[in-house]
Amino acid sequence: MREVSIIGIGQTDVGEHWERSLRDLAVDAIIAAIKDAHPERVDALYVGNMLSGELTAQEHLGTLVADWGGLGGAEAFKVEAADASGAAAVRLGYLAVASGVHDFVIACGVEKTTDADAETNNAAWAYGVDAEYEGNQGVTMPSMAGLLMRRYLHEFGVPREDFAPFPVIAHANGANNPHAMYRSAISAEVYARAGMVADPISMFDAAPLCDGAAAVLLCPSEMARRFSAKPVRIRASASATDRLAVHSRTDPLFLRAAYLSAQRAYLQAGVGPSDLDLFEVHDAFSILAALALEACGFAERGKATVLAKEGAFNLHGRTPTPKRGYGVPTPKGGYGVPICTMGGLKARGHPIGASGVYQVVEVAQQLRGEAGANQIEAHLGMAQSLGGTGATAITHILEG
Amino acid sequence: MREVSIIGIGQTDVGEHWERSLRDLAVDAIIAAIKDAHPERVDALYVGNMLSGELTAQEHLGTLVADWGGLGGAEAFKVEAADASGAAAVRLGYLAVASGVHDFVIACGVEKTTDADAETNNAAWAYGVDAEYEGNQGVTMPSMAGLLMRRYLHEFGVPREDFAPFPVIAHANGANNPHAMYRSAISAEVYARAGMVADPISMFDAAPLCDGAAAVLLCPSEMARRFSAKPVRIRASASATDRLAVHSRTDPLFLRAAYLSAQRAYLQAGVGPSDLDLFEVHDAFSILAALALEACGFAERGKATVLAKEGAFNLHGRTPTPKRGYGVPTPKGGYGVPICTMGGLKARGHPIGASGVYQVVEVAQQLRGEAGANQIEAHLGMAQSLGGTGATAITHILEG
Repeated sequence: MREVSIIGIGQTDVGEHWERSLRDLAVDAIIAAIKDAHPERVDALYVGNMLSGELTAQEHLGTLVADWGGLGGAEAFKVEAADASGAAAVRLGYLAVASGVHDFVIACGVEKTTDADAETNNAAWAYGVDAEYEGNQGVTMPSMAGLLMRRYLHEFGVPREDFAPFPVIAHANGANNPHAMYRSAISAEVYARAGMVADPISMFDAAPLCDGAAAVLLCPSEMARRFSAKPVRIRASASATDRLAVHSRTDPLFLRAAYLSAQRAYLQAGVGPSDLDLFEVHDAFSILAALALEACGFAERGKATVLAKEGAFNLHGRTPTPKRGYGVPTPKGGYGVPICTMGGLKARGHPIGASGVYQVVEVAQQLRGEAGANQIEAHLGMAQSLGGTGATAITHILEG
Repeated sequence: MREVSIIGIGQTDVGEHWERSLRDLAVDAIIAAIKDAHPERVDALYVGNMLSGELTAQEHLGTLVADWGGLGGAEAFKVEAADASGAAAVRLGYLAVASGVHDFVIACGVEKTTDADAETNNAAWAYGVDAEYEGNQGVTMPSMAGLLMRRYLHEFGVPREDFAPFPVIAHANGANNPHAMYRSAISAEVYARAGMVADPISMFDAAPLCDGAAAVLLCPSEMARRFSAKPVRIRASASATDRLAVHSRTDPLFLRAAYLSAQRAYLQAGVGPSDLDLFEVHDAFSILAALALEACGFAERGKATVLAKEGAFNLHGRTPTPKRGYGVPTPKGGYGVPICTMGGLKARGHPIGASGVYQVVEVAQQLRGEAGANQIEAHLGMAQSLGGTGATAITHILEG
């Protein structure tokens, strides 16, 4: 199995792109990634996208983007894993290069939601839950997240206000990301009085659906230095699933897929949570961020909001701990780790099938020292993307 | 890169499954493939499907099927490449096992069209063409195929009746396949008087949309004999794309993606068209079968119907030629090769995202000597699946 590195990254601004179509956005990101590395050629393109068919009557998206991106004959598919579609594209790119089949592969994530109205978007986004047992009841993604959050508040005796740090951190970091959709900081007071979307999920607990595309260009690590002065090595790529419907899970507050995929990634990379300098967590909803942090070993069960209050997830929050390696027990309360360093899904925005690639691009930015005002000292970072209510989890650990 | 073999195959009957849902069909095929090989575990599941979101409000399909299939935590994604989605799933399974990342991978193709009406199905099927430049004009898949066929008739001076052998062969072979949707032979006379769907595409030139699921279980070739008495080795796996819109192609009658992916497959396997004992061709429309046969080197340009008339594509049609290897020029007229040995898309049926896996399963049946009344002497077979009007082509060469 060959080692794989990221040699090029590209991203469009996240937001409402009224004058750019689905294909335009994807091609913009791809061209940026190609210009970043000038590869000899592109052998394959994997496009992560959830709703191109439902929202823009376009399937066969991989081939469309390869065509409009001028990739002349390259292999191309679309891959879908709900909100984790973008991360799935990175995962496939990793497999293709690791296998020795392809040398230069682009993983692109793209979503265009503004071609449909908000009602259509919300209905289609809910295609990520179990259509016959959850969707048929009329649930939406925010309502499912609301049920999880309500249960968390009850189970761990946490007041709703304690979730404030998640969007506060995201917005503080997003303010310095030129590509972010929301570039204004918010306070805990603003969070406390925000309108409800699906009680107890408020406007600031839910990431905004929007348009955007991001891309990474992968090649074998042994060739990477020829194309990039700062290649980023993929130390681990791992994926896992859980029961799709929340009601099928033994413990709805334990994100088993997030746990499994993180453990597989830690094992592959030979590192543990304490070794990571940042974690791009899937904060489509604050509650998912809290549960993922707990599942991945950055916080004990029920302690994510406690650690958050102490600033353990702030940009420069965690005091560096001695490197410990894989399998070392988590200290009381958890390690903490900087999260959402470029704004997370909440402030950068959540262009559904693109978010997983944005996360990987943002970890790469930190590892390459290109994170601007949000730069932290980082050598090892992790990105984890969740699909739906957490039934799919895809985790990448990157090294700069 | 590890060699990859097929150790298990499974398929549902193809047709109208009013009492089985999308997930039921997929799980039926998966269980059959698992029972065929009894693997130690399943590491990953790739589900090829085009329209689960549009027709049944269900995305996140990989994880749903892994959940209902009892695959407990396995990696799972849906992959989409229009009609070639199933073949794309096989391709990803190949990459995952070849890479060394996974040992036991299931590639499943599934489609459920009877949950929506025919109009919805036809509109959604056309999401495989360019939505903004072709789809917006109101084209359907049959109408696009009609344009290609009309051009072929004009360009090569072939009468429409000369396309009869394609559906005649498919129906003759489908009659002996217990899983086929249509199990009755047709004659050239029946073909000649069939009603038009999109002139010159008649009812017998167009494969029927329907329900079905098929699955293959892959593992490294070195382990294959432990799980199967008759493992089928994947000698080549290759994929290519063309311009998505037909009007963008320099020569609409040259299926460049089919040509490229076949050439890549021939090169990988070190064989040429004359070495192949059968070819499961993508006969979603007779014209696509003819064009693919020409692009893959089984017939000269414009000669597919001539060879067909001579019986060169019949089940026992081709006189075995001396093995020639890759790169040898095609003889005058072409080699011919048995096609659609289990009925092809036309008679077995075309459950869109499942067809690519059915093709691979059927080649495996031939190589394992399990093709019943349609058994031919076969050691090397090829399956090629096309997406849309041929913009994606995925080719597998299998050895028994």
